[in-house]
Amino acid sequence: MKQNIYDNPIFFEQYNSLRNSGVTYNDFVEQPAMKSLIPALHGKSVLDLGCGAGHLARYCIENGASKVLGVDISKNMIEQANKENKHEKIDYICLPIEDLEFPEYKFDIIISSLAVHYIEDYPALVEKISGLLIKGGEFIFSTEHPMVTARREKNNWIKDTEGNRLYYAVDHYQEEGKREEHWYVDGVIKYHRTVSTLINTLINYGLVLEKIIEPQSTPAGLEIMPKLIHEVRKPSFMIIKAFKM
Amino acid sequence: MKQNIYDNPIFFEQYNSLRNSGVTYNDFVEQPAMKSLIPALHGKSVLDLGCGAGHLARYCIENGASKVLGVDISKNMIEQANKENKHEKIDYICLPIEDLEFPEYKFDIIISSLAVHYIEDYPALVEKISGLLIKGGEFIFSTEHPMVTARREKNNWIKDTEGNRLYYAVDHYQEEGKREEHWYVDGVIKYHRTVSTLINTLINYGLVLEKIIEPQSTPAGLEIMPKLIHEVRKPSFMIIKAFKM
Repeated sequence: MKQNIYDNPIFFEQYNSLRNSGVTYNDFVEQPAMKSLIPALHGKSVLDLGCGAGHLARYCIENGASKVLGVDISKNMIEQANKENKHEKIDYICLPIEDLEFPEYKFDIIISSLAVHYIEDYPALVEKISGLLIKGGEFIFSTEHPMVTARREKNNWIKDTEGNRLYYAVDHYQEEGKREEHWYVDGVIKYHRTVSTLINTLINYGLVLEKIIEPQSTPAGLEIMPKLIHEVRKPSFMIIKAFKM
Repeated sequence: MKQNIYDNPIFFEQYNSLRNSGVTYNDFVEQPAMKSLIPALHGKSVLDLGCGAGHLARYCIENGASKVLGVDISKNMIEQANKENKHEKIDYICLPIEDLEFPEYKFDIIISSLAVHYIEDYPALVEKISGLLIKGGEFIFSTEHPMVTARREKNNWIKDTEGNRLYYAVDHYQEEGKREEHWYVDGVIKYHRTVSTLINTLINYGLVLEKIIEPQSTPAGLEIMPKLIHEVRKPSFMIIKAFKM
């Protein structure tokens, strides 16, 4: 069963209002790191897996990409993308990214921002991505950091009685698989994978690792969201770049 | 100042009695994973950085290596290697691994078991290793896991009042550098590095990542040391294999 939490109306409304605030971990931690790994786009075809409302798809076009295909499981998200980030060089399709098939066409670049941790079968996804890339093509994706997804209980910041953060709790690291958490609504499901699984699977399917980023906040982020200072204490995300052999 | 804790007599005696027990994290977690990544050795020349008492050097010879050079900063360790693991195909030299220079000779394989976290300048070490490998040559090393080295306070298993382990504490992850701990004696110094630094530095110096292992205990280890079950909850080590482009 593929998860489509973004079509839950309560979740969608809350998530949207968060993202539209422009004051999120994505804005100041994940997106800057993700963009720093996206290569020169001029004339390149891009596949955006889990494109959401199309912000990154539009960013690619604004930076020279010739064509972007954005794919997302959520009808809500694709509708919003077609409203807010419509562009003649972007196609949005509503489809679980696991169901994507493109035997006829290969992409120069595949990107995926914070979608991979929703996918149950990571090896199958990576095999598909490898098959969809031209030789030398690049895959850049971000995911929640394995240190964040590991512990089943969540609420990993352990605090003292006054609410000060003492340290970050890790547990169940080697037990990969489903993690359920409350994020606006109950039952949001993500999949925990270890660092070694994230990386070895890419290598097993013919990708060559280029760079990993465990990002911290930008200086602007630290001013606007002072709590981002805690990103120094443990990483929230892992961004990985690899090319097809 | 290069650290030479293994020539501290109190440390050396305690460490030796631990290693000779045959009942350690090394025996059941780190060494099996390390050995699983060492490639076919027949006819290969091997450099062992931080060779200690020469167990791994001897293992390489017993598995077909033509020649091993073992290097260790500790006079105690090299003396012991020459007593316990002497072999006509092994040379042991007492030298900080940072000071190694071999402009004339390149190795097929470089191994290093749990020594890299004692080295302050990791990029300089990796640059040297890359220069000492033949094209296609492999570097396999183990290090304490970044999740273990991160927190300055150490004693990272947080326990309840009855001594049960609640979870593992991570902190200060992005603050790389010196960590001091008590291990038989005060002032044992290790260097914390993030996962991304460990990996990106290899890539920056012309190595291609092949595989990462975050090992768990062998079945035998779980029987003899039941506490190794906690390795499922957080990894103690990271073993990395890469080849020279």
